[in-house]
Amino acid sequence: MTELISSLDTYDVRFPTSRHLDGSDAMNPFPDYSAAYVVVRTTEGREGYGLAFTVGRGNDVQVAGIAALAPLVVGRPVDELLADPAALLRLMTGDSQLRWLGPQKGVIHMAASAILNAFWDLAARAAGKPLWRLLADLSPEQVVSLVDFQYLRDALTEDEALDVLRAARAGRDERLARLLERGYPAYTTTPGWLGYDDDKLARLSTMAVEDGYRLIKLKVGARLDDDVRRLAIARQAVGPDIRIAVDANQIWGVPEAIEWMRRLRPYQPYWIEEPTSPDDVLGHAAVRRAIAPIKVATGEHAANPIIFKQLLQANAVDVIQIDACRVGGVNENIAILLLAAKFGIPVCPHAGGVGLCEMVQHLAMFDYLSVSGTTEGRMVEFVDHLHEHFVEPARIEAGHYVAPRAPGGGAQMHPASVADFSFPDGPQWTGRAA
Amino acid sequence: MTELISSLDTYDVRFPTSRHLDGSDAMNPFPDYSAAYVVVRTTEGREGYGLAFTVGRGNDVQVAGIAALAPLVVGRPVDELLADPAALLRLMTGDSQLRWLGPQKGVIHMAASAILNAFWDLAARAAGKPLWRLLADLSPEQVVSLVDFQYLRDALTEDEALDVLRAARAGRDERLARLLERGYPAYTTTPGWLGYDDDKLARLSTMAVEDGYRLIKLKVGARLDDDVRRLAIARQAVGPDIRIAVDANQIWGVPEAIEWMRRLRPYQPYWIEEPTSPDDVLGHAAVRRAIAPIKVATGEHAANPIIFKQLLQANAVDVIQIDACRVGGVNENIAILLLAAKFGIPVCPHAGGVGLCEMVQHLAMFDYLSVSGTTEGRMVEFVDHLHEHFVEPARIEAGHYVAPRAPGGGAQMHPASVADFSFPDGPQWTGRAA
Repeated sequence: MTELISSLDTYDVRFPTSRHLDGSDAMNPFPDYSAAYVVVRTTEGREGYGLAFTVGRGNDVQVAGIAALAPLVVGRPVDELLADPAALLRLMTGDSQLRWLGPQKGVIHMAASAILNAFWDLAARAAGKPLWRLLADLSPEQVVSLVDFQYLRDALTEDEALDVLRAARAGRDERLARLLERGYPAYTTTPGWLGYDDDKLARLSTMAVEDGYRLIKLKVGARLDDDVRRLAIARQAVGPDIRIAVDANQIWGVPEAIEWMRRLRPYQPYWIEEPTSPDDVLGHAAVRRAIAPIKVATGEHAANPIIFKQLLQANAVDVIQIDACRVGGVNENIAILLLAAKFGIPVCPHAGGVGLCEMVQHLAMFDYLSVSGTTEGRMVEFVDHLHEHFVEPARIEAGHYVAPRAPGGGAQMHPASVADFSFPDGPQWTGRAA
Repeated sequence: MTELISSLDTYDVRFPTSRHLDGSDAMNPFPDYSAAYVVVRTTEGREGYGLAFTVGRGNDVQVAGIAALAPLVVGRPVDELLADPAALLRLMTGDSQLRWLGPQKGVIHMAASAILNAFWDLAARAAGKPLWRLLADLSPEQVVSLVDFQYLRDALTEDEALDVLRAARAGRDERLARLLERGYPAYTTTPGWLGYDDDKLARLSTMAVEDGYRLIKLKVGARLDDDVRRLAIARQAVGPDIRIAVDANQIWGVPEAIEWMRRLRPYQPYWIEEPTSPDDVLGHAAVRRAIAPIKVATGEHAANPIIFKQLLQANAVDVIQIDACRVGGVNENIAILLLAAKFGIPVCPHAGGVGLCEMVQHLAMFDYLSVSGTTEGRMVEFVDHLHEHFVEPARIEAGHYVAPRAPGGGAQMHPASVADFSFPDGPQWTGRAA
């Protein structure tokens, strides 16, 4: 009997993080970190896990988006879907009726991402490998076959992508040994949430350095005086040699971003993240020209590789920040890694949230082994909460992500967590939790 | 008693247009034109109507998106919401949790648009005016107060917008008289759907000219040979003086678009619409540079004014195509009209679908009276189907939209149409229609 996809279920899981202001920033004062969690099951009892991250209200809309795509895969042969992930993504993003809801952006695109990543998780489990290893073991030709070049070819052709991948073959074994030994560099946002008071900021900043981080990140953009004070406190806590990135979470327009960053310049911010709308490629370019040598970083809200392509073409960014869940899953993130490598721009993935650390670390490690071939100027964000809900929680040692050894892509949650935090009927939301 | 919003209901209405290939194009071979229809009701029994247009599957996700926003307005005072539509839009697009689903794009943004437009409909009914007239009667200062300049100020300031609006005061009375007498120019896409055979194409093209249209539009992009043949047939049918626009509905990458359009050049296409991804500002600019003097048009899938701003900044388009439902409703469309006027680029609205003609004509007429002050190079798309479902169907005479006289914004549907075409339980879908 051919093994088929027997079901694709999605769960509305929400964590009441707003109660402690974890995750608070200029645009998200009270987030409830949430996941539209996906479990794909086969007729032989195998399972794959994926998710779309949201910040609370609207997680039900995300669940509805995933449910709308489910009929495209349920009942189909597993082997056929796993054999061609690019075709699977096209099946979902190219559906002639559903694509109207994006195209390639927002709810319906994150839905496709969650499902595609669940299939990658299934594939990695089938191979008995962590996802980063499964990807790193692909040939350059196989990697290129994962990418849809339709809208990218004016910036990156198949041949150019092959060149990038072939060049990165040199030194792979050494890098693999190094990755297994030391892990992949991390930075931390734990000290810097806007909702934390000055003492907590200072204490967590000092602790971050003691923990081995070389870069910490602070949220900015609510009040300039506060930002100046907080940046001064953090700078004093970490000393001159630790990088401090700042993150405005899109709160400014272009002229405002330029003016505000000029005021923060004395405290040597390393990068300004999301200075303005994630859709504003030319705006980022203008900010970058005005505030150099402060770097400009963006990407966690960039909807798809077409936006990243333009950020690179327009010299709009110094740092590209991929997100495991917003663009079309593993395949579109590989496209972005290849674009960034061709343009020589480092990728520092966005993480935190729910499961983002667990998932995106695989892509960074793949980048190191097979695409950029370096960790120079590169690190993955780390935020130290909600990991306990994952079967394979991200592990940090001495400021580095430890390379996962377990098969899969990282998104599997504990069934008890899914049940406890189900919205609105789980015990954590009904008040009936023990 | 203060009048409150008592309910905001949304209906999944789908028309089985795929049965006749009306609306078929290179990316939408079998659309079922649909609407997530919104009715907002007050405690005093007043109603306002809005909708989000989709092409079938996924209309339920759009309904879920609207339902997620409903709690933001239900129970609130009507006067307060109507007094400041910009604040109402910000309430919906700025919700700190829901905005993660966009931001300002896709399902959640179209949901905000449908609701905002329903409130504008309510306001126009309260004023006893058609929406175009309500808007045209606003002072320049009132119009400027409708626009959120946060992400636009690097291209258009409040003062520049005021200058545009004040300059357009001259000659308004003459334009109003002209509008009431002759209507607003239309063009038609009725002949050009990809699913139509050559005879139907020739017949409908000839008929379009007889009906007074000066521009017809053909869908292209599926097969080059077919496009060459169909364009030749249409050119022969309409003669040398009628403009023929072509529309690729995003099917090409940048190099492909350039190559394909060079092949169509002998038939003098007037504009190429959506040559590539709607997110690709720089791609449109590259296509435009390569294929001049053929014009480049886009916008029906551009998610928000930030994309339009960049299309203008990058000299990427010759024609801006607004859509009544995709960006954040009336307010964001006013922002786009102002941007286009400042940059001197004509706006030719996208219409067709479900209710798009009924709604967007108001914005074009407002543009004529208060913003650009001209119909030069400007016209609104018209497609002749599904109008019978609307209480105030768009009316065309001699190739012009007749200015609506009835109060409202155009989106109100006949209750019987909503009931008959409700998906999946309406009689047109269960097969129990008379």
